[in-house]
Amino acid sequence: MLFVACEPPELQEQQPAFDPQVIAAAVLDVLDAQVEAWNDGDIEGFMAGYLRSEELRFTSGGEVRRGWRHTLERYRETYPDRAAMGSLAFEDLDVRVLSEHAAMVFGRFRLTRESDEPTGLFTLLVERHGEQWLIVSDHTSS
Amino acid sequence: MLFVACEPPELQEQQPAFDPQVIAAAVLDVLDAQVEAWNDGDIEGFMAGYLRSEELRFTSGGEVRRGWRHTLERYRETYPDRAAMGSLAFEDLDVRVLSEHAAMVFGRFRLTRESDEPTGLFTLLVERHGEQWLIVSDHTSS
Repeated sequence: MLFVACEPPELQEQQPAFDPQVIAAAVLDVLDAQVEAWNDGDIEGFMAGYLRSEELRFTSGGEVRRGWRHTLERYRETYPDRAAMGSLAFEDLDVRVLSEHAAMVFGRFRLTRESDEPTGLFTLLVERHGEQWLIVSDHTSS
Repeated sequence: MLFVACEPPELQEQQPAFDPQVIAAAVLDVLDAQVEAWNDGDIEGFMAGYLRSEELRFTSGGEVRRGWRHTLERYRETYPDRAAMGSLAFEDLDVRVLSEHAAMVFGRFRLTRESDEPTGLFTLLVERHGEQWLIVSDHTSS
């Protein structure tokens, strides 16, 4: 450990102290859990993937909501019942690991509902808080 | 240097090897240069803030464009002349430094034109490439 810690920077860059594949898998697990909760009609469960803090930023169209509570309210307004929630799928997910603490995720959401199939693109910033990876910023556009 | 490199991880976290304020300033310089170029009617100059690569991702509304060239074409189509370009300002910029190589920027753009004032929100991923900080992903919504 001490030997590794004492390697010159260029060597350290060749051998990062973290494994991007492990981080990407942990981040994708968060999104999988969100889809599962959503499709159980559990918006609070879906919201467990977001940082439960006033810091959370949720950008949708031209509006920014700050904080976990406001984001939950927005979801409840937009998706008042199971019919409105429909069935959620994430597509074309692309996880970019930026450090041992941060990753970005790009992707598309698709809701399959009785009468329509809304879809849109999102850019997420996901950060490690303790042992958990949590969404701290969500920019979604339809 | 060796002594610092050998400090235990918790101490290293308290003293990051990079200065977030210096990085944030470098990132803001890129955006300032973009505004200056735009307001000179220089779209190619504005595009100098983006990574000149097929990797570049430009998300606007429901569409993703990949690559510097396609992004330039999109800007040229959307803003064919000085009147369409108007005068650009960035507002409410929030730079979040994620590592010595990556930062995210949240903000609002506003175009002041003869007949209207289009505005929208953006989330940028900016990465260090050599000595330059360049936008590698832009998610904009109006």
